[in-house]
Amino acid sequence: MVTLPAPDTPEVSALRAAYFVSDSTGVTAETLGNALLANFPGIRFLKRTIPFVATDTEARSVAASIENDATAGRAPLLFITVKRAGLRSILSASKATVIDLLAGHLTELERALGTTASEQLGQFHGLGDTERYFARMRAVEYAIEHDDGQSARALDQADVVIIAPSRCGKTPTTMYLALQHGLRVANYPLTDDDFPSEGLPRAVAKYRERCFGLTTTPLRLSQVRHERRPSSRYSSLEQCTLELRRAEDLYRRNRVPFLNSSTKSVEEMSAVIMQTMKLRA
Amino acid sequence: MVTLPAPDTPEVSALRAAYFVSDSTGVTAETLGNALLANFPGIRFLKRTIPFVATDTEARSVAASIENDATAGRAPLLFITVKRAGLRSILSASKATVIDLLAGHLTELERALGTTASEQLGQFHGLGDTERYFARMRAVEYAIEHDDGQSARALDQADVVIIAPSRCGKTPTTMYLALQHGLRVANYPLTDDDFPSEGLPRAVAKYRERCFGLTTTPLRLSQVRHERRPSSRYSSLEQCTLELRRAEDLYRRNRVPFLNSSTKSVEEMSAVIMQTMKLRA
Repeated sequence: MVTLPAPDTPEVSALRAAYFVSDSTGVTAETLGNALLANFPGIRFLKRTIPFVATDTEARSVAASIENDATAGRAPLLFITVKRAGLRSILSASKATVIDLLAGHLTELERALGTTASEQLGQFHGLGDTERYFARMRAVEYAIEHDDGQSARALDQADVVIIAPSRCGKTPTTMYLALQHGLRVANYPLTDDDFPSEGLPRAVAKYRERCFGLTTTPLRLSQVRHERRPSSRYSSLEQCTLELRRAEDLYRRNRVPFLNSSTKSVEEMSAVIMQTMKLRA
Repeated sequence: MVTLPAPDTPEVSALRAAYFVSDSTGVTAETLGNALLANFPGIRFLKRTIPFVATDTEARSVAASIENDATAGRAPLLFITVKRAGLRSILSASKATVIDLLAGHLTELERALGTTASEQLGQFHGLGDTERYFARMRAVEYAIEHDDGQSARALDQADVVIIAPSRCGKTPTTMYLALQHGLRVANYPLTDDDFPSEGLPRAVAKYRERCFGLTTTPLRLSQVRHERRPSSRYSSLEQCTLELRRAEDLYRRNRVPFLNSSTKSVEEMSAVIMQTMKLRA
């Protein structure tokens, strides 16, 4: 996750293999495994995700690959989310340090809940609760239909309307909120036309309480716009400074909460937006 | 996250509170916490995610909320990804069963790696590796630009081209691959016009080796299309059956791998696509 010198430079001490192995999609193993490894920025990891490991043969093939890494001196780490005990023991017998992300916690939970875990494979990243799943898929459609102010239809159904000048991060944030959280998110670009007025643009004014603004730094905005239209007025530092100042004024005047996207990831922005707009249980 | 009956209905035996508490976005706590709880389908959970818990005061306020749930008989579970030991001990002193998703594994990793975890907050869901982050954001843009066959520009840069008849799940799968994995994914709708020919549609024929097909069941397709255009030829079971049969023939004739989206989530489809197209390390 960290930018590192080339592998053969002498200051790099250790290259470690890290396997994320799952009997399902591998999303959980990858997410938690990466979160854990992020705490060791001084070490380089050669990462490999292997999803859908369901048979003894597949588990043995993973173990063989681990063996190769061990022989090559990359002392493998193995993060697993595998439910069947038989598969876990094949994997655990490999020459890796095994970090079992489920088994220990499942035992804690069985004790706390006074019941045993279901024998079925954990299906959290499967269709699972189909109603919730299809709500997420419909939210993606809604987001695409309402991207960049494209459609004013059914704007009253939006959970949030993200407003910002062009290239401040509206679209990825919108998609993340839709795809991960099933929220209906519209986004609307603020342009020069919107600024003579004191109020919000006509298309979104009715939904002021659902509006959330984004801003960024003029330099960052200018860089991003430059990628799209080099050396244009649109990407000039002067124009970017002006648009951002006007947008922030607009947010303040209309009491629209906003945040700066230049130092925040879509995951962080989404978490802040959900918290601010009270979109979580 | 789950649709629940009203809390006072008598058939609900146990309602347990489940907290996902994080010093960062809460993505890791939510992902793993939910994966664990999915193993106990017989129990209803009242879930609450609390991100950005950074101060003693905030931790105490979470503890107070947990106390309320405990008093109300909802015997809380508390999943935490919190790095500061001071905050962890405030939370752990609450009346919850604490499932610490990081601390134990970090100790295992410190031992295996022979070094201590960085004192900084884990930033996996922050900007982190900015190069990888911006690649993901550009992939989202690319996906939107190339959604539904909209643009043939830069199709040669696609990592995958998803092809399928309308409403088989191309768009959400495309967005997931872009947003989570930073892959450049174009998608192209197969229409009646594409079927007289033996080969792939002209726009994508050059990229046959990067094509991946989707199919579904006629009944499911008809239901989904019905939501968009009720009682039309487009949504008729006859038309859906015909289009899917022709699409599957097209995939087979052109040796395009494909899968059925009716029983798979976007996470599962994405994992299969990455594995089939060798888009993982």
